Amino acid sequence: MRVLAKDMAEAASARPETEVEAAGWVHRIRDMGGISFVILRDRSGLLQLVLGEGALKPELTLESVVRVRGLPSLNEKAPGGAELKAASLEILSRAEPDLPYQVNGDPAKTGLEAILDNRPLSLRNPRISSIFKVQDTIIGAFAAYLRERGFTGIKSSKLTAGTTEGGTNLFQVDYFDRKLYLAQSPQLYKEALVAGGLERVFEIGPVYRAEKHDTPRHINEYVSLDVEMAFIESELELIELEKGLLAHIFDEVARKNAADLEAWGASVPAAAAVAGAPTVSYEAALKLANEEQAHGRGGASRIFDINPEAERLLCEWAAREHGIDLIFVNAFPRRYRPFYTYPLGGEGASGALTMSFDALFRGLEITSGSRRLHDYGAFLEALPKFGLKAENMAGYAQILRYGCPPHGGFAIGCERLTQKILGLANVKEASLFPRDRRRVEP
Amino acid sequence: MRVLAKDMAEAASARPETEVEAAGWVHRIRDMGGISFVILRDRSGLLQLVLGEGALKPELTLESVVRVRGLPSLNEKAPGGAELKAASLEILSRAEPDLPYQVNGDPAKTGLEAILDNRPLSLRNPRISSIFKVQDTIIGAFAAYLRERGFTGIKSSKLTAGTTEGGTNLFQVDYFDRKLYLAQSPQLYKEALVAGGLERVFEIGPVYRAEKHDTPRHINEYVSLDVEMAFIESELELIELEKGLLAHIFDEVARKNAADLEAWGASVPAAAAVAGAPTVSYEAALKLANEEQAHGRGGASRIFDINPEAERLLCEWAAREHGIDLIFVNAFPRRYRPFYTYPLGGEGASGALTMSFDALFRGLEITSGSRRLHDYGAFLEALPKFGLKAENMAGYAQILRYGCPPHGGFAIGCERLTQKILGLANVKEASLFPRDRRRVEP
Repeated sequence: MRVLAKDMAEAASARPETEVEAAGWVHRIRDMGGISFVILRDRSGLLQLVLGEGALKPELTLESVVRVRGLPSLNEKAPGGAELKAASLEILSRAEPDLPYQVNGDPAKTGLEAILDNRPLSLRNPRISSIFKVQDTIIGAFAAYLRERGFTGIKSSKLTAGTTEGGTNLFQVDYFDRKLYLAQSPQLYKEALVAGGLERVFEIGPVYRAEKHDTPRHINEYVSLDVEMAFIESELELIELEKGLLAHIFDEVARKNAADLEAWGASVPAAAAVAGAPTVSYEAALKLANEEQAHGRGGASRIFDINPEAERLLCEWAAREHGIDLIFVNAFPRRYRPFYTYPLGGEGASGALTMSFDALFRGLEITSGSRRLHDYGAFLEALPKFGLKAENMAGYAQILRYGCPPHGGFAIGCERLTQKILGLANVKEASLFPRDRRRVEP
Repeated sequence: MRVLAKDMAEAASARPETEVEAAGWVHRIRDMGGISFVILRDRSGLLQLVLGEGALKPELTLESVVRVRGLPSLNEKAPGGAELKAASLEILSRAEPDLPYQVNGDPAKTGLEAILDNRPLSLRNPRISSIFKVQDTIIGAFAAYLRERGFTGIKSSKLTAGTTEGGTNLFQVDYFDRKLYLAQSPQLYKEALVAGGLERVFEIGPVYRAEKHDTPRHINEYVSLDVEMAFIESELELIELEKGLLAHIFDEVARKNAADLEAWGASVPAAAAVAGAPTVSYEAALKLANEEQAHGRGGASRIFDINPEAERLLCEWAAREHGIDLIFVNAFPRRYRPFYTYPLGGEGASGALTMSFDALFRGLEITSGSRRLHDYGAFLEALPKFGLKAENMAGYAQILRYGCPPHGGFAIGCERLTQKILGLANVKEASLFPRDRRRVEP
């Protein structure tokens, strides 16, 4: 029976005289003349194999896949506290020796491009694969928290004939004899389903932005963790929901991914700290950011909007003053928000501010959200102000025309949240197969 | 405090003298002269509102969204066993009276096209929304079962430069200054990540097939429930995994979606029955299907492959002989399977049969899977036989060249499984926003 590396110490204690099987990749080879040591790597961790004299075959290369049988024994100095004295070793798949990426090295010493170019190999490095174990916990915790609260997970189409945002930055698809676009968000669908009676929905799926950015915070295809809910009064209920959601995600990562956090020297905020994260208005946030600068904590040029410098300063302020590197900024001016954002002061108000918010975590915007317009008349009134025509928005109109509850929602960038939890320098590190302007493979 | 329809009877019992709030859509209006009844619909079900004389305002239209306050009381004859005597009724969003779809009607009496054309409205029908509540349970149960067993959920790119299947049936995307394709499966990525050390992965995501089919079993964009795992000997271990997975999904649907199943007069197989589902070889399956015909159970024309007629006959046979409408067909001839399918008899064998399988459930193929080639030499040898060139398969080659464990996997069509659990006539009914050759909206 196969025993995983992480369970070998237990097997050695419980059944020391029973032969077991291990399988995995050859992570390291140490030939000591007579006796040899091979470090085996499987999905759970590392395991030391002890090979007797002459047992180390020359064809055994690094990264070959092997199956080993032998007796386990406890060894405090070995990884995981146990080792396996190999009675037999079978090579299931021999790796060619010209490895283009050193799997057992320190990924901090290889550049990002080398890591991404060689993803199937670089991912074998335990520190790198830990990123995606954390990401899966994030996704699982997100869904579980929302399902518990009456949300239904949805799967909307990624192929759309139009757009809710105005038609820029879209990738075009040849769809039989016509042109469609890759969806840049499930916004319209989320709202259709909330109004369609589900009331509370979430979606975990890819979104596409045809933006020519080349920064450590942008990718052209990312996983959006989307939420939308009915019967809210303002964006403040959405902020409370996101706090609960983030606290649960952090708790789950702490519980399931302790070793992965340790690999990156990372930790997650405690639930109580998340609950205490401040919410400040856009106007107050700008003032705060400029004050931080005045105290010599940032650059010299005056800050006029919530740019990356402001995001960093605001998070540092929140960490210092509120004990958590998380801050919600709300009440954005109308010009920064899409037409469907609800005005502060009521549906009919032509106010300059909106019921909207961003969440900034460890110096980076991870969420954008808002209450949405739900009144059909207000919707028709808003369109021309944004250069939009009612006849191009028939899908949206149908949602609002036949009874739509007050509602709102938000989206968390999954890769950005992963990045910030682990302290990665670039969001691309948190995408298995990132797509940017130049990178389309692997 | 808002009380959901499903909880109103409990509220009436526990706190009969306490006013509560309900909110939702106006499902039905019955004006009895003095007293009026309004059936309110929220995400949990239906609730009867009792309105006193003169309280029924003429502007209250079907599908308007309202908020009501009043005293709950038990009433055996009302839906859910309770009703609310409305002290106040506020219209939050008035529906225009020209409803293009009758929400409170019987969806069996409206055609599929009307249902899909008016998705935001037709979804409000409780029977139709129940489809997507079941679908979310399927997705949640799929992920939970696999995570429990050491699988990592992954999110791979849907934009690919090439294809593993040979380049046909792909939708082309304008990606900055080049052409990419929408992925028709995450096959290459699943294998890259299994070989990349994760060993066991699953993915829940959209896949795209640019096929011109127009049948009740095809859509051009669907949700694929993908699984891939290392260290298997044959497809039989995959069949066992799928049996466990399906049994868990069925159990969860039975537990969480009893009312949704009832709405469709549907039931799910018991776990014990799933475990007893038969596996027959392709050759034996063909023989069986023809024997079924000979006994007058199908059409007259001889069956030469596992076509829809054969799928139906085989499931009927399994139901009759094994007590479950589920059958696995394995050992498909080489010509029906992609190049990466492992030959029956071993890696080097040029055998005519493969370690592959399909799962047929209630007359429909819901899964295709196989053990895959993992030996680099065998891979290079196989390519030219399928008209493929090694230089176009560099991504695949990198996966196999540097140590790849024996592995295999399968994919379940999420919409097809939903369809068959509920007994829907057309797979499009099980897609929120289906895409076919003509339909690209909503």
